[in-house]
Amino acid sequence: MTHRVLTGARKFAEHELLPRTDEFDTLADEPPFALYRRFHQAGLAHWWLPEHHGGPGLGLEQSVDVVSELAYGDAGTAFTLLVPYTGSLMVQLFGTDELHRRYVLPMAASGGFCALAGSEHEAGSELGRTATTAALDGDHIVLNGVKAFSTCADFADYLLVLARDATEPGVFHTVLLPRRTPGVRIVKRWPVIGLRSSWTYEVALTECRVPADHLLRGNGLRILESGINALRILIGATTVGVARRIRDLCMDYAADKRLGDGTLLDNAVFAARLGQMEIQIDVMRNQCLSAARTLDTVLARPDAAAELLRQGTLRSAVATKMFCGQTGWDIASTASEMFGGLGYTEELPLGKLMRDIRYASILDGGDDVLRQLVYNRYVLPAFRRI
Amino acid sequence: MTHRVLTGARKFAEHELLPRTDEFDTLADEPPFALYRRFHQAGLAHWWLPEHHGGPGLGLEQSVDVVSELAYGDAGTAFTLLVPYTGSLMVQLFGTDELHRRYVLPMAASGGFCALAGSEHEAGSELGRTATTAALDGDHIVLNGVKAFSTCADFADYLLVLARDATEPGVFHTVLLPRRTPGVRIVKRWPVIGLRSSWTYEVALTECRVPADHLLRGNGLRILESGINALRILIGATTVGVARRIRDLCMDYAADKRLGDGTLLDNAVFAARLGQMEIQIDVMRNQCLSAARTLDTVLARPDAAAELLRQGTLRSAVATKMFCGQTGWDIASTASEMFGGLGYTEELPLGKLMRDIRYASILDGGDDVLRQLVYNRYVLPAFRRI
Amino acid sequence: MTHRVLTGARKFAEHELLPRTDEFDTLADEPPFALYRRFHQAGLAHWWLPEHHGGPGLGLEQSVDVVSELAYGDAGTAFTLLVPYTGSLMVQLFGTDELHRRYVLPMAASGGFCALAGSEHEAGSELGRTATTAALDGDHIVLNGVKAFSTCADFADYLLVLARDATEPGVFHTVLLPRRTPGVRIVKRWPVIGLRSSWTYEVALTECRVPADHLLRGNGLRILESGINALRILIGATTVGVARRIRDLCMDYAADKRLGDGTLLDNAVFAARLGQMEIQIDVMRNQCLSAARTLDTVLARPDAAAELLRQGTLRSAVATKMFCGQTGWDIASTASEMFGGLGYTEELPLGKLMRDIRYASILDGGDDVLRQLVYNRYVLPAFRRI
Amino acid sequence: MTHRVLTGARKFAEHELLPRTDEFDTLADEPPFALYRRFHQAGLAHWWLPEHHGGPGLGLEQSVDVVSELAYGDAGTAFTLLVPYTGSLMVQLFGTDELHRRYVLPMAASGGFCALAGSEHEAGSELGRTATTAALDGDHIVLNGVKAFSTCADFADYLLVLARDATEPGVFHTVLLPRRTPGVRIVKRWPVIGLRSSWTYEVALTECRVPADHLLRGNGLRILESGINALRILIGATTVGVARRIRDLCMDYAADKRLGDGTLLDNAVFAARLGQMEIQIDVMRNQCLSAARTLDTVLARPDAAAELLRQGTLRSAVATKMFCGQTGWDIASTASEMFGGLGYTEELPLGKLMRDIRYASILDGGDDVLRQLVYNRYVLPAFRRI
Repeated sequence: MTHRVLTGARKFAEHELLPRTDEFDTLADEPPFALYRRFHQAGLAHWWLPEHHGGPGLGLEQSVDVVSELAYGDAGTAFTLLVPYTGSLMVQLFGTDELHRRYVLPMAASGGFCALAGSEHEAGSELGRTATTAALDGDHIVLNGVKAFSTCADFADYLLVLARDATEPGVFHTVLLPRRTPGVRIVKRWPVIGLRSSWTYEVALTECRVPADHLLRGNGLRILESGINALRILIGATTVGVARRIRDLCMDYAADKRLGDGTLLDNAVFAARLGQMEIQIDVMRNQCLSAARTLDTVLARPDAAAELLRQGTLRSAVATKMFCGQTGWDIASTASEMFGGLGYTEELPLGKLMRDIRYASILDGGDDVLRQLVYNRYVLPAFRRI
Repeated sequence: MTHRVLTGARKFAEHELLPRTDEFDTLADEPPFALYRRFHQAGLAHWWLPEHHGGPGLGLEQSVDVVSELAYGDAGTAFTLLVPYTGSLMVQLFGTDELHRRYVLPMAASGGFCALAGSEHEAGSELGRTATTAALDGDHIVLNGVKAFSTCADFADYLLVLARDATEPGVFHTVLLPRRTPGVRIVKRWPVIGLRSSWTYEVALTECRVPADHLLRGNGLRILESGINALRILIGATTVGVARRIRDLCMDYAADKRLGDGTLLDNAVFAARLGQMEIQIDVMRNQCLSAARTLDTVLARPDAAAELLRQGTLRSAVATKMFCGQTGWDIASTASEMFGGLGYTEELPLGKLMRDIRYASILDGGDDVLRQLVYNRYVLPAFRRI
Repeated sequence: MTHRVLTGARKFAEHELLPRTDEFDTLADEPPFALYRRFHQAGLAHWWLPEHHGGPGLGLEQSVDVVSELAYGDAGTAFTLLVPYTGSLMVQLFGTDELHRRYVLPMAASGGFCALAGSEHEAGSELGRTATTAALDGDHIVLNGVKAFSTCADFADYLLVLARDATEPGVFHTVLLPRRTPGVRIVKRWPVIGLRSSWTYEVALTECRVPADHLLRGNGLRILESGINALRILIGATTVGVARRIRDLCMDYAADKRLGDGTLLDNAVFAARLGQMEIQIDVMRNQCLSAARTLDTVLARPDAAAELLRQGTLRSAVATKMFCGQTGWDIASTASEMFGGLGYTEELPLGKLMRDIRYASILDGGDDVLRQLVYNRYVLPAFRRI
Repeated sequence: MTHRVLTGARKFAEHELLPRTDEFDTLADEPPFALYRRFHQAGLAHWWLPEHHGGPGLGLEQSVDVVSELAYGDAGTAFTLLVPYTGSLMVQLFGTDELHRRYVLPMAASGGFCALAGSEHEAGSELGRTATTAALDGDHIVLNGVKAFSTCADFADYLLVLARDATEPGVFHTVLLPRRTPGVRIVKRWPVIGLRSSWTYEVALTECRVPADHLLRGNGLRILESGINALRILIGATTVGVARRIRDLCMDYAADKRLGDGTLLDNAVFAARLGQMEIQIDVMRNQCLSAARTLDTVLARPDAAAELLRQGTLRSAVATKMFCGQTGWDIASTASEMFGGLGYTEELPLGKLMRDIRYASILDGGDDVLRQLVYNRYVLPAFRRI
């Protein structure tokens, strides 16, 4: 039986997202808060909130199709709405109950947002070169630094900030920083080339003070990696949604495109391309589901937090983002040749869909970085161990 | 906990298959029956035989890793040993209990083989052009025709033959034909370019008579498709095994290959290639598991036979064979550049592994044929329905 | 010795085009006529005009690098400036001397433009289904129809219109239609997703009358094919320019990007990608030059017009457009992963360069159409002949 | 007008090579000397020998099609017959006239062979780590070391050996070593996986003494690079021949393959694949011709030797080998899916053609090595210069 959240997401995409495709491809002045509110009012926001906290309680596996449906409508909005998943999970796993009660539950109750603040300009993908510092000052922590890319940061309830210990340079922390803390300043919104209905900011932190219990427990780098596992799987799920929409766009176009005595639907080369797309989509979705199931299994363990700190980046999670990004791009590239001259105009949303799907290979670790990570974590040790 | 069959398969591969790599790449005079016997004696043959029949009772999902382990040792042997899975399943689903009791159980008890006999030269991939005929003659069926590619046919207990009804040309049957039936003649063994430890034959059928109850129940084309679903998933699993071996071969070579001040293991380009391979292997295996789980779910239904006759080719099953074949080939192609001049000699088994893994894109439906099939069955109807 | 036109083009690109990159990526209200004027004043416009007509007289081979240099600065402007090449060549080859004297020379003298008007919505790539008609009415020809994509049409001196004979449906004509002829109406400018500094229009023709000598001599379809050969080769040349710019953008970024103890320039994976790009660019340019030389050789023959009518589409010309489009896209795709998050913002021109280079696989025949054409013209007959 | 050598090569391939396809795919006991003799008797051997020495005097550009025709028949034989080109050129450019008179002219007169001896096991692609030494002993040079891969070495008149100076470790020499010199020992013939009609050996050199004038003039590494330029271009030309044969094999198969109401020739997907192959072959050949023309131009200069020592590896030469190897492999991979089950048997020569064409990406520098080389020589300096 289809979960009501899945049905709801499909309807939301159909009625609220699809009709606004062109609008979502612009760099608007302000996020569509009214839209987010309607998503919340429909009982869909924070669909992962456990039932004992009054939420729908969907696990990661069930979330794959929910995200795919939203992304079918608009990938940028889907991404915006799923970001808090990771930010909730990290506090739940690595924060105190008090922190969870104080920040996560109210955010869920109001359909609000939180943000990750990991990457920096100089460090780039080398998180170990993070320059933002966290200094202990009595029973407070003081954060200083500049975070390059933080999605939802401006309208988030809180940020999860990766910082280097001010006194022990090899030690990293993840700190929950309420958005309204003095010293948090939005430097700018990034003018992105796709996923334009998402909102990614550069954020400067100047002498931002939070109580010491806002420090999450464990190695800050591993905490971030743990959280990003869920994010990477759901990024994969967004590409499934976009790929499905591209496929359907091809079919719609082909049904109307006269060719010889019939339409493009009857053409064998077209059929071959769509057949290939279909199996690629099948594999993309299955990979998302498999990775999600793996993470759900870890999360169900009583020692989930410890286990995640131990493993950090899960192979299937990173494989999902990489594979779905690569395959999604292949699908978009193929499609972009199939519409004749019309496909090179804004009369079809193909340009948007291509630029949208590309994000999956770039954000939260480019493929070159991730290949090296997978090699170091999963290929080399297995070999050296034997 | 690892199933004893999986552990056994791993050991069998290590001790019985890996050391004979070169031998398995020749077109030997006779199948290695002693080897198959040892596989049976180790309690591994027919690992899918249900527990109530005295077998290990592994489902398709559990079989994925078993087959992967065997194929790590030798893909041709793995393929030979898994072919009876399909031939058992088809009789179990679409044959009478009597047929199952009379043929499948003794075959399993002796660690024997059965074969599919579907493809023909003229028809090629268009099974609807099958020319072999099945004629009713009293309470017997008489088969006539030539089957192009039938793996294990010569040493099989029985063949499952696809034939056109002699009087109703649009009707197709699948008939259980005992190998020793008069009129069954092996025309030749195919000199294959890879997977040389498997044994594929051209088989001529001349006035082969079997009792009428040897006819499986249902549309013969759909019966064959149903059986091939399992075969295609396990073909995918063999590519996982070969791909894993290629990866390990790369690592072994790199550990010994001096480069600059270190070894090839320290080279970033090498790391990138291996990282990419690793995520591809992760996705290949997950796709096999997902498709297997889907088929296991159908098989667990009380109406499994009817359901499979209705669906025929399952999307995930065909996606598995196509995707794993394509990705396996990509992995093999990448690897074949990484060994310098040595990789172009027979001193490394890479040539064998490349030729072996290629079969997945060719046997039981080439990709061009399958893309068209997926388009017709899964893309077009979904579109026309809406 | 470098030709002064090549040096001039390089300077023009550096001073007039590169600094306006962002502007050229917008859908401006009007073409940059002042820019075109400065190109003309620098003695660069119509660089192919023969010396005996007072032009620089560069052949197609020499034009390859000129176009590459211009496209390094901006592909849309390069494309705009090269379109008249084809339109001049067609009149020179297939028109009367009088027509050439009356239209081509004044256009060259003023640095003006002309346009091709071949494609139509319904016909798409099947030019044989062209619906625009040309009717003989006394000593005039009357044109009626709608042309889907015509670059430069609005500000062209004349259009070369492909039309079906109004009385003999299997006969096609190419007609020179002065832009200011009554009945020529610009329906709209296309909002293109790349190459935005080029100007492509939908054009309606209603009872447009021209004197009968405005009809070019020969099969209209073959005349168009003949002209498009030059266009396709120079489209290839634009991708060389864009690819070179992408490569340099990668190098600039890498020089500044700290990584480990050095910069990204020292990274082996980066080096591998750039090494591959470099050889691809070498092949792209060589292919443009080879195809150009082939066409130059035909054009130097006294029977050039007849020969081109006989051959129509030249294999190397179509191979150039296809190969350069495919390889350019591969280069752009590779590059788009190399800039981290910054590469997904408008702070780098990579988004523009990707969208620009894509046009080569779409305009003037998509790859699917051209593959079929090459098969029919060059593969099949060679085979059937033997 | 077609050169008699080209016509001769085509006939030779048709009558002497094509019919022996299966034989040439075995590791025979001995090279087919009778075949080489007939090639010589037909006036085809050493087709590059200048006219003033009594040879046909074809330049590199003209050699491209000659080699392509030979490789259409058999790539291994073509490779064997072209190897002396490089070995002749190096002596002509960098040796004394006396050396040329004494070794090259007799070799050409007898239709004999020479060999390059550069690569070593430990050094691999890092020629700067060459361990073979050349020591001056009075007016002789003494060579010691082991060369890993040397094609034609056993039946060569002489070897061109790359060696490190025994006293100045940073200095490298190329030395002409007559095959019959005491101390030259063939360790083994390599059991190659393709190109089996070529003969590549491991060669040990123990106290091999030659007169001091057998030392070629210039940096030994650059001399080798200079010679390999020609080799790499002609390796590219062999892939054109193999690719053309693959294309024709596809067409032959398709003409006989019934599909629907016609044959596979009528299938649109087949047409698309062949159309793509055709344009790829066009580009491959043009790239070979362009690179050959570039090298011919350098060779025609009076200071050719100095210029080549300065430039070493030419960008277009290395691009040719890499591009043709990559594209040839793509063509072979595509083709290998197009023959159904038959394509997986030895009844078609496709397996051989695939294994043959693969050599181009492996011998004389794998792609990973060459990408790095191109980056260091052509990408980085151009950038740092600006």
